[in-house]
Amino acid sequence: MRYYEDLKVGDRFSGGPLTVTEDDIVGFAARFDPQPFHLDAEAAKGTLFGGLAASGWHTASLTMRMIVGSDTELAGGYIGVGVDSIAWPKPTRPGDRLRVESEVVELRLSGKRPDRGIVRIRTVTLNQADEIVQTMVANLLVPARAAAAAVPA
Amino acid sequence: MRYYEDLKVGDRFSGGPLTVTEDDIVGFAARFDPQPFHLDAEAAKGTLFGGLAASGWHTASLTMRMIVGSDTELAGGYIGVGVDSIAWPKPTRPGDRLRVESEVVELRLSGKRPDRGIVRIRTVTLNQADEIVQTMVANLLVPARAAAAAVPA
Repeated sequence: MRYYEDLKVGDRFSGGPLTVTEDDIVGFAARFDPQPFHLDAEAAKGTLFGGLAASGWHTASLTMRMIVGSDTELAGGYIGVGVDSIAWPKPTRPGDRLRVESEVVELRLSGKRPDRGIVRIRTVTLNQADEIVQTMVANLLVPARAAAAAVPA
Repeated sequence: MRYYEDLKVGDRFSGGPLTVTEDDIVGFAARFDPQPFHLDAEAAKGTLFGGLAASGWHTASLTMRMIVGSDTELAGGYIGVGVDSIAWPKPTRPGDRLRVESEVVELRLSGKRPDRGIVRIRTVTLNQADEIVQTMVANLLVPARAAAAAVPA
């Protein structure tokens, strides 16, 4: 398990792959983003997307799933305090096989809680053709090892 | 239906409410964010969250659901090109009744495609106690009315 002190700028992690079906895309959209271009392959043809496309929130949620299953292994888990940016340069399509590549871009100890660090991580989500379907910069809360050591046994 | 020209800075929209159950929280987490504090009320007690908490991506997805069902009624639907920021000041908890309040903060025509505008919208997601569970600034692609008029009949 990695604590705040075990991480440094430039550390890289990867996760996935994970294949997305048309049923997955339509099922997510029905619950969270019920718009024609996410729900119906036929109706999607006449839209900006030109065919069925996953909700960006579906791509973001699948990205989280791959981060949680990745080789990062952060102590305390993956607790996001927020996101600095997300972009969806291309949509996720039925049958896409996604994977994630993450890199630590900044580290700082919390001002209020010196037993915790904030780790800024850039994660790129790619499809089977190595096209980028999402870029994200997120801030994760990672416990400091010093704090863990200070906890009474 | 609202086109780019129909929107102005300061326009406000609202959506919801929508109630979140423990089953919803656990079901979403099992698929997209399988960590103890999102999966198991008992295990969550000993974590930073102090009890079962929804994944931030669940809160974001529910927010999208309320935006799609809101009174905004954008022509072309709600197509996000990206997100400038998301923060989760408090987690969504089992039984929470959420709602969204959105405000247009910036408007610009696309440089590349003058038939489309980019509308920056700030959306706050609140629970039944009016506590903020999410703030988000997102950029939506909205067709311009001029472009719609130019489409041959």
